[in-house]
Amino acid sequence: MTPVTRKDVFYSDMLVRFSHCDPAGIIFYPHYFVMFNGLIEDWFNHALEIDYAHFITDRRMGLPMVNLVCDFIKPSKIGEIITLTLKIERIGNSSLKLNVSALYKDEVRSSAHLTVCVNSLETGRAVPIPDDLRARLEAFRQGQLDVPRPSELLHE
Amino acid sequence: MTPVTRKDVFYSDMLVRFSHCDPAGIIFYPHYFVMFNGLIEDWFNHALEIDYAHFITDRRMGLPMVNLVCDFIKPSKIGEIITLTLKIERIGNSSLKLNVSALYKDEVRSSAHLTVCVNSLETGRAVPIPDDLRARLEAFRQGQLDVPRPSELLHE
Amino acid sequence: MTPVTRKDVFYSDMLVRFSHCDPAGIIFYPHYFVMFNGLIEDWFNHALEIDYAHFITDRRMGLPMVNLVCDFIKPSKIGEIITLTLKIERIGNSSLKLNVSALYKDEVRSSAHLTVCVNSLETGRAVPIPDDLRARLEAFRQGQLDVPRPSELLHE
Amino acid sequence: MTPVTRKDVFYSDMLVRFSHCDPAGIIFYPHYFVMFNGLIEDWFNHALEIDYAHFITDRRMGLPMVNLVCDFIKPSKIGEIITLTLKIERIGNSSLKLNVSALYKDEVRSSAHLTVCVNSLETGRAVPIPDDLRARLEAFRQGQLDVPRPSELLHE
Repeated sequence: MTPVTRKDVFYSDMLVRFSHCDPAGIIFYPHYFVMFNGLIEDWFNHALEIDYAHFITDRRMGLPMVNLVCDFIKPSKIGEIITLTLKIERIGNSSLKLNVSALYKDEVRSSAHLTVCVNSLETGRAVPIPDDLRARLEAFRQGQLDVPRPSELLHE
Repeated sequence: MTPVTRKDVFYSDMLVRFSHCDPAGIIFYPHYFVMFNGLIEDWFNHALEIDYAHFITDRRMGLPMVNLVCDFIKPSKIGEIITLTLKIERIGNSSLKLNVSALYKDEVRSSAHLTVCVNSLETGRAVPIPDDLRARLEAFRQGQLDVPRPSELLHE
Repeated sequence: MTPVTRKDVFYSDMLVRFSHCDPAGIIFYPHYFVMFNGLIEDWFNHALEIDYAHFITDRRMGLPMVNLVCDFIKPSKIGEIITLTLKIERIGNSSLKLNVSALYKDEVRSSAHLTVCVNSLETGRAVPIPDDLRARLEAFRQGQLDVPRPSELLHE
Repeated sequence: MTPVTRKDVFYSDMLVRFSHCDPAGIIFYPHYFVMFNGLIEDWFNHALEIDYAHFITDRRMGLPMVNLVCDFIKPSKIGEIITLTLKIERIGNSSLKLNVSALYKDEVRSSAHLTVCVNSLETGRAVPIPDDLRARLEAFRQGQLDVPRPSELLHE
């Protein structure tokens, strides 16, 4: 269940918990967005290797949602381990468009296009994507962050 | 802060609470969807006058989200009383498209198009919108549920 | 459903919503604490008449939980309108002990003793309860904030 | 960050996420209870090796909270990896008392005593702890579930 980058896609597994589920026994849909927010956090920490908490707390920048489009295709049930995926669709001046999804085996459970922007927590206004972040985003999009892990090297 | 129907729009006021807000002091966006879900609940209970809990628990039907598109235009802050609005965009066979928004004074804070469908909690499958619900949806869309309240009659 | 003070107790009604409920169809217990937090917010705004958002945002003070003891006696179900109550148990130097409960008709659904303290959001440390808040807390405890409402005066 | 049993204690690491934090930038305390609920889930799945989702969904049993006592000692901040711990305090007829805590380095951030009971989701009433669960609880309490993992055996 360790998050991993393969080519230009980031993958993270997640257990569907009791606390995510509604009286119908399936994920209450706003929880998908909490999960997608966590996915972006994990992507920063594990793929881009930019510390998300430091980004927020010390650099005083945020990543508010600007627009989202989401299809909910099949329900997810308590106890299932779903795979969240993230891919970059567009890198703008201060905004970023991501395609995220929740998969279970060969099924797409939900799929979303999220447009976030980088803003300053001091002014509440959008700011250009900082250079270090932009460089990592470009590298991720080009599949350069798919580095073999030590355990993979061992098996080669 | 009592919910009200004006013509073909349902309005419900809501306080932005501490529990809705993130470290930036503004609504964490997944909470908007919890609020919109509550808005649909209030609309059933107060405008359509179909008991939402009874619909779920006794009639064993659900209203899962199928698709949503949402713009987040301006942030909402703790302590603000925002007005949630709901309007019908389309009544399908088993689906329903709604336009909901969050307003503060003359600002649109967020605006969404939500497509929900009626399904059976027994089978997990979509079912046609039941007749009583369809009749009320049509009446709402035509502005027939904008009935003067006793207090308004008093002032006429 | 307007919040009201009777003698030394504050009352606020609340609908048990779909979003509060778990796969067993009853309130998922952490939601009780979100509700109790909202109750304290409403008590500040409507009974103590100290603006909670202003207290947090402008006066930069918080009310973190220090200790809580809670009994969950009976489950609460979607669609029920439960009454939340709040009473002061002890006013300390910087801390405050409250007795809160959730009632439905003549049943106690849950009952808690909450100890919160006033702290500075700048330093993260406890500070003495500010004088204006202390004065209102004392008045509330002595039942002086149970003022008749205009509509009640009309009927006398 | 894989959960592990050491003697009679279960440990699970958890990242403090943006979504857990309030306008003061620290865990909003009801989230601790969502985390403790997740801890019990992980403990079932990984230590007791009783499938939690199957327990709820197929065996139709729940674990509602009956009583809790919790001290919040120090705040936890976004980006910290805290360790959640769980130990059995008492095994009753249908109830179970657990001591759970959240640790960061050598600090105790919060510590709680949770009394849950096993109930039937059909009747909503308490039922005796099933035999298979009781046997595993006893084994856990006696430290018999602290089994060396393959990777540990390799290093011996």
